[in-house]
Amino acid sequence: MPIPAANIVRRLRLLSFVSCLGLAMTLATEIINPSAADAARASMHKLDNGMDVVVIPDHRAPVVTHMAWYRVGAADEQPGVSGIAHFLEHLMFKATENMASGEFSKTIARLGGQHNAFTSQDVTAYFQRIARDRLPTVMKMEAERMTKLRLEEKEVLTERDVIKEERRSRTENNPSSILSEEMNAALYQSHPYGIPIIGWMHEIGELTREDALEFYRRHYAPNNAILVVAGDVTAEEVLKLAKETYGKIPNNPAVKTYKRPLEPPPKAARRVELIDARAGEPILQRYYNAPSYASAKNREAEALDLLLKVAASGSTSKLYRELVVKQKVASSAGGYYTGHGKEYGKIVFYGVPARGKTIEELEAAIDGVISDIIANGVTEAELERAKRVYIADYIYESDSQATLARRYGFGLIVGQTLAQIENWPNEIRKVTLNELKTVAAKYFNPKASVTGHLLPKPRKEATAPKQKDRS
Amino acid sequence: MPIPAANIVRRLRLLSFVSCLGLAMTLATEIINPSAADAARASMHKLDNGMDVVVIPDHRAPVVTHMAWYRVGAADEQPGVSGIAHFLEHLMFKATENMASGEFSKTIARLGGQHNAFTSQDVTAYFQRIARDRLPTVMKMEAERMTKLRLEEKEVLTERDVIKEERRSRTENNPSSILSEEMNAALYQSHPYGIPIIGWMHEIGELTREDALEFYRRHYAPNNAILVVAGDVTAEEVLKLAKETYGKIPNNPAVKTYKRPLEPPPKAARRVELIDARAGEPILQRYYNAPSYASAKNREAEALDLLLKVAASGSTSKLYRELVVKQKVASSAGGYYTGHGKEYGKIVFYGVPARGKTIEELEAAIDGVISDIIANGVTEAELERAKRVYIADYIYESDSQATLARRYGFGLIVGQTLAQIENWPNEIRKVTLNELKTVAAKYFNPKASVTGHLLPKPRKEATAPKQKDRS
Repeated sequence: MPIPAANIVRRLRLLSFVSCLGLAMTLATEIINPSAADAARASMHKLDNGMDVVVIPDHRAPVVTHMAWYRVGAADEQPGVSGIAHFLEHLMFKATENMASGEFSKTIARLGGQHNAFTSQDVTAYFQRIARDRLPTVMKMEAERMTKLRLEEKEVLTERDVIKEERRSRTENNPSSILSEEMNAALYQSHPYGIPIIGWMHEIGELTREDALEFYRRHYAPNNAILVVAGDVTAEEVLKLAKETYGKIPNNPAVKTYKRPLEPPPKAARRVELIDARAGEPILQRYYNAPSYASAKNREAEALDLLLKVAASGSTSKLYRELVVKQKVASSAGGYYTGHGKEYGKIVFYGVPARGKTIEELEAAIDGVISDIIANGVTEAELERAKRVYIADYIYESDSQATLARRYGFGLIVGQTLAQIENWPNEIRKVTLNELKTVAAKYFNPKASVTGHLLPKPRKEATAPKQKDRS
Repeated sequence: MPIPAANIVRRLRLLSFVSCLGLAMTLATEIINPSAADAARASMHKLDNGMDVVVIPDHRAPVVTHMAWYRVGAADEQPGVSGIAHFLEHLMFKATENMASGEFSKTIARLGGQHNAFTSQDVTAYFQRIARDRLPTVMKMEAERMTKLRLEEKEVLTERDVIKEERRSRTENNPSSILSEEMNAALYQSHPYGIPIIGWMHEIGELTREDALEFYRRHYAPNNAILVVAGDVTAEEVLKLAKETYGKIPNNPAVKTYKRPLEPPPKAARRVELIDARAGEPILQRYYNAPSYASAKNREAEALDLLLKVAASGSTSKLYRELVVKQKVASSAGGYYTGHGKEYGKIVFYGVPARGKTIEELEAAIDGVISDIIANGVTEAELERAKRVYIADYIYESDSQATLARRYGFGLIVGQTLAQIENWPNEIRKVTLNELKTVAAKYFNPKASVTGHLLPKPRKEATAPKQKDRS
């Protein structure tokens, strides 16, 4: 299944001196044959303290991808402390009992590695890519910061300013990000996916060192983590190292995830209208709440992936051909399904009106395409093409060691088994036209939708006098 | 300030045999002079265990109103257990250590009293009205159930079915209730006022005995309660009785209210469209988030009360005269401000389109009246009339012992002082035209609004073909 690119607050820490240390070549190994997909049959193990270990052998180059995945994300935050999961992710690069603040990053850099971390609604993950002989050092450091973080008040406050600035630049200064945030808040009436991963600004500003430590103590423990190592190593090697590092951390029986409230049955279509002079052009978005891979039954997630591929992905999609090419009502239009959440997935459509067309005309045209798909489905040829594209993408993506590691991590975090993760292409192959029709009728449901309009200035029709004139 | 009638899940337990016991006459004491308002200067006391005691002397008849107010409401529920505050309110009539299940109600009835309980977002309150010489018994029983509730699994499950049925009849079978629920969910993006007091049906169905007891142990204690006694008693008498009953319950230092998340700054107008064939006619509602008496500064809550009185209350209001009488676009129209929440108040407008008029025409007309008020304010004469009406209402309402007790209870719960509660008419008198203009411009803010349409069937304009025709 496709790896989510959106809905993650990510920090790329590409260290500029990587190439100086002679690892540049090994970092380009994705193009070397044989394909990692063939070799990639992962194995799963469990340490005595409850930590899961997944090893994905990939011997094309002497490099490894090491990822520590915690089964906790923004959706596990308690009311009032939104952003704490992501804040803690930042703070994980500060001091620990045996490392100075910043030492983690400096060491990775000195060893010629790359590293990265991200927070989604369901997971917080830390990853490093490094020469295989450096793996023991990385594992030692990552294990160290699992339970031995030492936070200084002053550093916490400085980092909070960094995050506020991050929110300003990514969200507050970006009208389409605000629109998405407002639409999520309207889509989820009860479930925490309605709260932004980075947090509400007014709550970020109140986060404390103690909030971060409380979250850390409650969720960071070997029995709440999955170690994923992909690369030029064997399961035996990884397990031996894991026992010597992570294996020494005691199981923490106090680890506890709060119960996430589920959505009530959807009853009413919702709309959000954001007027923001900074918006260059009007943007329309439509969200539908839908199941995720983890919560769906009967291949519905696979069917949604294929349906949205045919309906709205790229310039050969129904939506693009109808709106941009034929009707010329949109200058761009697309959509996708994202199915990586623990409890919910989301169907997204978007479009920008063509010059001289209104956002209402665009919305009517999108609704026309959706109605047509509900009524008439898609063709066998379209479905087969979508399957081929997905399976080709899957294989191609498997050549990236990082993508491979992420695929397993995301799947395991939401509760899939190795077999389910690896069997995805087969499930995709099995999806029928009828299954697509079923999910279209079921999930293109106005009652479960939010429609968002981003407008550079108020629409004339919405003002009172104009409406009165019309009557 | 006006006592909220809506937003409360209430159980009237008017016992039909009250009159048999000769108390019928005393129950009609509201019309007896002298007005209770003159006598009503309450006094406030604190027991050693932290319980507040308020006594409001009212010697017109040998009757008392006894209320136990807990500083906990539906907005204090944790995610996933919506409805637990109200559920517990029901369960409070079951067995305690020294009372059989139902004994509380039976005893009150036998003594010729009435009783009642309700749960709002901010408070849970229990009240009895009874002959003054029965007060010791009532206080003993109410004190008993403050900490000595004994819940049986079977009774809990039966009561849960009662509540599910309550929700079915009040909400699920009532399209306008559903509309309000959906609009609240859209109005509050973060604060728990967005969750219905009675709870989401899917969560009510999962509530357990242990959930109820956990909520009870965390929130029901003398140091989290206010005793309000109004009636034919002196402060000395009440305090003596209170010490002998409530005073014997130990202070519970573990009582703790969770932090309520506040709203992010409003950024985008929201809309909700509910299509329900059971709706007899279309209904339009508009909500604006606004401060409450507890959270407002500079008399803004008083100004909002007066503004909405002039703008939308009754057949002499601007809204009614313009929409129903003059434009004939509405068959009914009105609005009000409700300012009793701890963190937020709400401005509400509503209307029903006249025959032959669309809901869009009605909305445009409402927006026209609102725009006019923002631009031109109201007149001195309108403001003075509104003040007179409010102050008259206040005095008239003060003649009801129950209303009086509720006024103090609601005020104290959200943090007002006795002086603030009793000084309300004076604050109302001070409000200026300019203050009304300020709050109109500030709080008739589309970005902080939700507009709801309840339609018996889908509007034609919203379907794709019609929109295309228009382009």
